[in-house]
Amino acid sequence: MPSRAASDDPRLGDVSEGTILRSILSRTKPATATIIGPGDDAALIAAPSGAVVATTDTLVHGPDFRLAWSSGFDLGWKAAAVNLADVAAMGATPTGLLVALAVPRDLRLSFVEQLADGLHAACDALAPGCAVVGGDLTVSDVLTVAVTALGDLGGVRAVTRSGARAGEVVAVAGEMGLAAQGLGVLFGRFRDGETPIPVDAAVLTSQERAAVDAQLRPVPPIGLGPVAAVAGATAMMDVSDGLALDAGRMADASDVTISLDRAALGIHPDRALAGGEDHALLATFPSDSLPPGFRAIGRVIARTEHPVLYDGEPVGPLGWDPYRDWDAAAG
Amino acid sequence: MPSRAASDDPRLGDVSEGTILRSILSRTKPATATIIGPGDDAALIAAPSGAVVATTDTLVHGPDFRLAWSSGFDLGWKAAAVNLADVAAMGATPTGLLVALAVPRDLRLSFVEQLADGLHAACDALAPGCAVVGGDLTVSDVLTVAVTALGDLGGVRAVTRSGARAGEVVAVAGEMGLAAQGLGVLFGRFRDGETPIPVDAAVLTSQERAAVDAQLRPVPPIGLGPVAAVAGATAMMDVSDGLALDAGRMADASDVTISLDRAALGIHPDRALAGGEDHALLATFPSDSLPPGFRAIGRVIARTEHPVLYDGEPVGPLGWDPYRDWDAAAG
Repeated sequence: MPSRAASDDPRLGDVSEGTILRSILSRTKPATATIIGPGDDAALIAAPSGAVVATTDTLVHGPDFRLAWSSGFDLGWKAAAVNLADVAAMGATPTGLLVALAVPRDLRLSFVEQLADGLHAACDALAPGCAVVGGDLTVSDVLTVAVTALGDLGGVRAVTRSGARAGEVVAVAGEMGLAAQGLGVLFGRFRDGETPIPVDAAVLTSQERAAVDAQLRPVPPIGLGPVAAVAGATAMMDVSDGLALDAGRMADASDVTISLDRAALGIHPDRALAGGEDHALLATFPSDSLPPGFRAIGRVIARTEHPVLYDGEPVGPLGWDPYRDWDAAAG
Repeated sequence: MPSRAASDDPRLGDVSEGTILRSILSRTKPATATIIGPGDDAALIAAPSGAVVATTDTLVHGPDFRLAWSSGFDLGWKAAAVNLADVAAMGATPTGLLVALAVPRDLRLSFVEQLADGLHAACDALAPGCAVVGGDLTVSDVLTVAVTALGDLGGVRAVTRSGARAGEVVAVAGEMGLAAQGLGVLFGRFRDGETPIPVDAAVLTSQERAAVDAQLRPVPPIGLGPVAAVAGATAMMDVSDGLALDAGRMADASDVTISLDRAALGIHPDRALAGGEDHALLATFPSDSLPPGFRAIGRVIARTEHPVLYDGEPVGPLGWDPYRDWDAAAG
């Protein structure tokens, strides 16, 4: 990705919408499923199985990311990754992204170009064949990226949250808790606002760097979503708000209790329980023979008073609620 | 729509995300094409023709609407209508909407409920069978509604902007210029900001009221998109930025010139030429026998130096460019 010279990097308010769109579209490559790509009133994307999986998730400056911490590339990567994870969690393969971008007028053109690069790099790494197929560009004082991801099930049945049954194995694929640790490092060591302390990777240990990377550019196991569906997963979702909260949602949807083994949650089990944003895949399977990439972390049992048990004890609703947890004034 | 008593209308910052979502979802009804609706990681929507039309368009407080002028119902209606129009402009029938909502914490719950009502009322009126199939809720200081609309072509070929050929008829369906007149009335007679003059329909003539309604709750001819496709439209788009600008885009995409007849543009031809936001459908047809609802406004001719001619004279690029035309400071 060649970077733009500062002398050739106008603010978005000083260039036309057409110039910005041309700059973004010049970085777009066709998705495998694209029949009609960006540039018309709408895109046309193949849906060979006769139905389309569709999901939308938004990143807003403040609660979801900070420009002091995230580059344009990071932001594009993360906006793609979190949406690809929701498609994968249904058992589908991502086929295309639509990107609604609302940008402040004083943002630089290079930022938007890097954002487009980040979107495509995430698709290439996590969901090859998927790419940006359409979008929209508007002005806003708050930088906002709303992505819609589409996917195809390739003939398998969609895996919802409500299919878990007592006696089944609870399993995960992907990281749990690393992105939350990264957020802790960012909040603890750096600062935006009036007296900023910018992110400096040089002052971090390699483990801290990995955690910060997981927060800024998560790597959910997108390809394992369809693998789980083919292997007979009965319920699946991505862990975006922490295992405790999300396992509780699956338990409620399935009218079961999910009993987690602390010993199976790695060396930081409490962090895994509370930390979202890695977008691991949580799934239930009818037998102990799990597909590659998944590891057992518990059992589905008949519904008890509590949706989630942790070594047999009830676990409270830990996790992320943007209305409860984010305070712009303290941001 | 029963309205909420002020004593039972909390600010969004004082209630949980779950409460807000439940309140919105209780107003949701299934779209005809819904296989899996809201509540899981993603929705699953039928795509019987084996491909899905997809488009996204965002309304941002400031450049796209003002809370002083638009109710929650108006905003929901408009967010649906502008996206349904993009699906119709491909010749497709809308099958579902995904709604990414970013809301300030001091907004009232009733506003979001009315927004959900407006989304569904627009679907019922403009695209029966279509409804909200999924969404996302986040916090932002700037109220932002990003909608993605999906559609199915029902076996016909998608109609793009690039298929117009010399000798064909240029036609439109729907209003042109009325919404722009409404914006003029709003800017001229009312004011938000520090010394607001709230919208008062009683001081308006019936024609002014119709224009304001067209601006706040546009009524694009969604059902005529598939009608045009079946009738053999060679190119189509919705007029969102004014006929002059949008006809120029179609002319450029098709490498032709579009020659418009001033006399065919109604009693306010210049307003029709410059005014967008009615989301009329602009289409070209190979013969003079137009489908019901379309009226001829010109001819496609071989490419000249100018993309658009107006009674034989070149027409400049009139119309709406958010980067050029909107100034937050003056808003």
